[in-house]
Amino acid sequence: MIESIDPEIDAGRFPCKRIAGDTLDVTAAIFTDGHDLLTAVLRHRRAGAENWNETRMQPLGNDRWHARFVVEEIGRYEYGIVAWRDEFGTWRQGLSRKVDAGLEVHSELLEGAAIVAAAAARSTDRDDARTLEKAANRLAAGGDPALRLETALSVALSDTMDRHPDRVAEAHGARVLAVEVERERAGFGAWYEFFPRSCAPQPGRHGTFADARARLRHAAAMGFDVVYLPPIHPIGTTFRKGPNNAPVSAAGDPGSPWAIGAADGGHCAVHTELGSLADFDRFVAEARELGLEVALDVAFQCSPDHPWVREHPDWFRHRPDGSIQYAENPPKKYQDVFPLDFECEDWRGLWQALLDVFRFWIAHGVTIFRVDNPHTKPFAFWEWAIAELRAQHSECIFLAEAFTRPRIVQYLAKAGFSQSYTYFTWRNTKHELQTYLQDLHEPASQETLRPNFFANTPDINPEFLQFGGRAAFQIRLVLAATLTGSYGIYGPPYELCIADRGAGAEDYQDSEKYQLRQWNLQAPGNIIAFVQRINAIRRDQPNPWRGSLRFLPIDCDDLIAYLRTGKTREEVMLVVVNLSPHHAASGWLEIPLEELGLDPDHTFQMHDLLGGATFLWQGPRNYVALDPASSPAHVFRVRRRLRTERDFDYYL
Amino acid sequence: MIESIDPEIDAGRFPCKRIAGDTLDVTAAIFTDGHDLLTAVLRHRRAGAENWNETRMQPLGNDRWHARFVVEEIGRYEYGIVAWRDEFGTWRQGLSRKVDAGLEVHSELLEGAAIVAAAAARSTDRDDARTLEKAANRLAAGGDPALRLETALSVALSDTMDRHPDRVAEAHGARVLAVEVERERAGFGAWYEFFPRSCAPQPGRHGTFADARARLRHAAAMGFDVVYLPPIHPIGTTFRKGPNNAPVSAAGDPGSPWAIGAADGGHCAVHTELGSLADFDRFVAEARELGLEVALDVAFQCSPDHPWVREHPDWFRHRPDGSIQYAENPPKKYQDVFPLDFECEDWRGLWQALLDVFRFWIAHGVTIFRVDNPHTKPFAFWEWAIAELRAQHSECIFLAEAFTRPRIVQYLAKAGFSQSYTYFTWRNTKHELQTYLQDLHEPASQETLRPNFFANTPDINPEFLQFGGRAAFQIRLVLAATLTGSYGIYGPPYELCIADRGAGAEDYQDSEKYQLRQWNLQAPGNIIAFVQRINAIRRDQPNPWRGSLRFLPIDCDDLIAYLRTGKTREEVMLVVVNLSPHHAASGWLEIPLEELGLDPDHTFQMHDLLGGATFLWQGPRNYVALDPASSPAHVFRVRRRLRTERDFDYYL
Repeated sequence: MIESIDPEIDAGRFPCKRIAGDTLDVTAAIFTDGHDLLTAVLRHRRAGAENWNETRMQPLGNDRWHARFVVEEIGRYEYGIVAWRDEFGTWRQGLSRKVDAGLEVHSELLEGAAIVAAAAARSTDRDDARTLEKAANRLAAGGDPALRLETALSVALSDTMDRHPDRVAEAHGARVLAVEVERERAGFGAWYEFFPRSCAPQPGRHGTFADARARLRHAAAMGFDVVYLPPIHPIGTTFRKGPNNAPVSAAGDPGSPWAIGAADGGHCAVHTELGSLADFDRFVAEARELGLEVALDVAFQCSPDHPWVREHPDWFRHRPDGSIQYAENPPKKYQDVFPLDFECEDWRGLWQALLDVFRFWIAHGVTIFRVDNPHTKPFAFWEWAIAELRAQHSECIFLAEAFTRPRIVQYLAKAGFSQSYTYFTWRNTKHELQTYLQDLHEPASQETLRPNFFANTPDINPEFLQFGGRAAFQIRLVLAATLTGSYGIYGPPYELCIADRGAGAEDYQDSEKYQLRQWNLQAPGNIIAFVQRINAIRRDQPNPWRGSLRFLPIDCDDLIAYLRTGKTREEVMLVVVNLSPHHAASGWLEIPLEELGLDPDHTFQMHDLLGGATFLWQGPRNYVALDPASSPAHVFRVRRRLRTERDFDYYL
Repeated sequence: MIESIDPEIDAGRFPCKRIAGDTLDVTAAIFTDGHDLLTAVLRHRRAGAENWNETRMQPLGNDRWHARFVVEEIGRYEYGIVAWRDEFGTWRQGLSRKVDAGLEVHSELLEGAAIVAAAAARSTDRDDARTLEKAANRLAAGGDPALRLETALSVALSDTMDRHPDRVAEAHGARVLAVEVERERAGFGAWYEFFPRSCAPQPGRHGTFADARARLRHAAAMGFDVVYLPPIHPIGTTFRKGPNNAPVSAAGDPGSPWAIGAADGGHCAVHTELGSLADFDRFVAEARELGLEVALDVAFQCSPDHPWVREHPDWFRHRPDGSIQYAENPPKKYQDVFPLDFECEDWRGLWQALLDVFRFWIAHGVTIFRVDNPHTKPFAFWEWAIAELRAQHSECIFLAEAFTRPRIVQYLAKAGFSQSYTYFTWRNTKHELQTYLQDLHEPASQETLRPNFFANTPDINPEFLQFGGRAAFQIRLVLAATLTGSYGIYGPPYELCIADRGAGAEDYQDSEKYQLRQWNLQAPGNIIAFVQRINAIRRDQPNPWRGSLRFLPIDCDDLIAYLRTGKTREEVMLVVVNLSPHHAASGWLEIPLEELGLDPDHTFQMHDLLGGATFLWQGPRNYVALDPASSPAHVFRVRRRLRTERDFDYYL
């Protein structure tokens, strides 16, 4: 019986996820009736391959077994468990017990001879076959019992027998399971979102891709990995929105980039004022030279001026009066946006066209896609589209912007999205953060949902930032960047600490969504150097930030403390954050010395990579004080004392 | 999407379990992409029936839904979940919001008219069809908008539409699930095990079924539900064991009843010294008259003298020297017992013969079987055999005596056994008991494994009883009888408080397994009246004892306290036991007043059904003191104060 395989998502309906180079640890309950010993193997292969690789599983006790394999390459692997009764091992164990008890074992040796002879007959290795035949003959022969026992119980025979087990009655786990392996950026990366149209050096001019290259350098200097652009396509004019989401626009208002499509084209065109497709290609190339990847926003909706409205009116829902149904959330109307009808008669044609949108941009060097509101489109579309794209472009990464209920967020992650927007933006207190992070680390989430913690977005100007001042921006940045592998900010407002509230509770005043802005990157009070430092810490040692997370007790409600551990115990970071942007806070922190390999009797160094200071600590309880006026956080590397004092460098 | 259905055992591989008359509560996560409202139904039917019964599910929040159904009859039921988009409800909600916002809704009313007209066309009920047609016409017509809206938003229309949903695109849970429903005795009963051969009134004579009738009356008087007999078949003479498991027997030694089979017959015969098959039938009938059921021991193994050894030597494993392999656990040999080879060539013949053993005894009025060591026979045999037997005799109950590792115990329960022996016998301290009971109430166990807590067996003379004296017997009896629905004792040693230790750590001295004993049921110090009282309490109100279990805080390590609750809050019992047989213990008990419906400002009565005393308590913390010298336990019924004082009986 092979039961309770872990990981196994929804009875094998979905794959679990890993990053290339990661290890997949698999456990299962494996047992049989009777008293026979078992052999179990974990097998794995690239999906589509014919042959399996097998790894012996080891018993953990109480019928739980374990083995692991490394997923070297991007793509899908399959895995499963196979087990069988170990006839020879069972016989050998019984024989050994009888010998120990001084019993006569002539008959047992004859039974063993038959088992070994059968293995000899099975063996396809001629040397092993000969060895086993000889052993079988020796067991079956009369003569010196001591000599026969020596053969029977020898490690050499055991090892040879192990290579030729009788697997005719082997048992298989009920289902072949899968793991989807992606590249590192799927699980680790710092994202910087900005509007290219606000990059012109002259006030009032529409920014271009050429202008935006300076912003690329700015993002690269801050140490980001991904720059993510809101939609870059032609913007509709019908019902175009004015500044601050005004229902009517004036001449010259640029409109919302999410009202996609105009006479110039739709999802496969570039907004003329940003430049040409060739300009975009140059922009992508320059980003690559700076170590940045460009992520595009995929928003499957159309302005009334989108070419598809004319070419494929059947792809939209029509009202009884013949007009096309615009987006709405009663009483709100979004007349500048037509949703696509994914269930229209010609859904195959529509779905193929949408897939081709991805393919178009992949051909232009984009492999990271941030998908707008995927939860308002059919789950089946995403599962199909992502699988189709991955089959040809396994390097593609998909971020789901589904601000909706947890089950739906989770489902989209299972259905194929590499990463997910989360509720992090609204989790501020210690209790909220700890509870939410624990939810994300529950088995159901942890194997399939990779969070991307955005500290703000053009749509979400969090109240915490509106009222917390500069320290608030630092606090939320540290949390976003150290609680998960992927995080992002929408800049330059973020690094300039700008959070003026617009009409809605979480709107930005004079939002770039509806107008051009100009940003002074030298403005006093900015946290550019702080962002730089955080990203440098992350890049220096990536694994802990997408590794395991453990909150530590600290006796102050404003202080939150956690350990992040990478693939080994050496890859450990300890973060302490003061969650109050207004007050200094202090408390006693408890750290698990033994787990960290620290000697309770010796001092150890805590090196704050953020502030640069080093603290000498000893024992499990140590004092921490953080004043948001200077720095609201420590990001510690633990330096263990080395036992040798041959040289001065005795901290590791 | 329909996910995370609960209960669902191993992706539907096994049924969950209930008792006839129980409710099956089913929850699931149900959601869809987009913003449409959903309708979900839980459907169920008798297995094999064509039509489903449907129950509307209710949302619990965050996409979790719930419904329940009552399993009225013994046998298997199937259940599953179906959900679909509620087109009319979604439309109605949108309309309502627009009306509230004062928007113009002409187009919306036309859309609604189309939805209602489609339902009219679908309706097979002519009255409903006419009603819907009229409503559709009213919505589509011009004229007074207020009147049209009144129709559109009316509860009457909503109710009628609800009866004719468009289920063309309904979604089904991935698997049809099953629940196995058994009779009450599968989950609730007090068992009394005894050896008929020790029932003779004269010392040294072999007891008969006729003699054993006195013991039936004794068991009935103590309030037991089931009497369970060790094997009653002819006992082999070859390698017959002598008293206290001596390897050699003297003439006249009766041998072990588990060495089954002799010249007189095998598993379908009665040991001649016990009487004839007709005597056994009379014994079963008399038991029935006394309100007792007879359970038989099914031990699928043979003495060397069993007829099958001669008739079907191929059903046994042979050693290289041609002899039949006896049972062994090196260095121990059990030469009086041959295991059957369930995987022999003629396994079909053997399995059928074993099935026929059950059928034979069912024909003689036995429907409860205690199966000896099921884990040393193939799981597949039990799954097949129990299903075959249940198909014709759904009243059959199977108790698995698998003293082995947890996964295997659990698997046998899933594969079909109604009840399972447990580790209760070795759980003595508060921590051990609480941890073990919590394990048994974990989802994986709770839905499939029904414990039967035996306080002792002929094989297990627990150390706690060996050294604890009379109070120890009372303590373990109360625990066994009040912690689970089914429990048992092996008597008369239990009620006579006899626990003299034999050679092995848990053997009985002069065990009845190997010799005849005589018991004086009037011996001083017996706890017969105590057993009577406990069984009377259980019978008086069965549901709490197989209902939910919750441990309560009590500030004394020797005291354990728990609530048992039946189908309603009224069916609640509170048990407090002193786990020390040696010392008096006292402590403050915390009880959840609100949950029990108790007013913190008024006294309430705690009526000890065991001791007869009544305590007046108030508030959440109350004092309990228990002296094992008088009684080691309270079994309280809570008597709530009634708000009326019209008569004297103001406690309920």
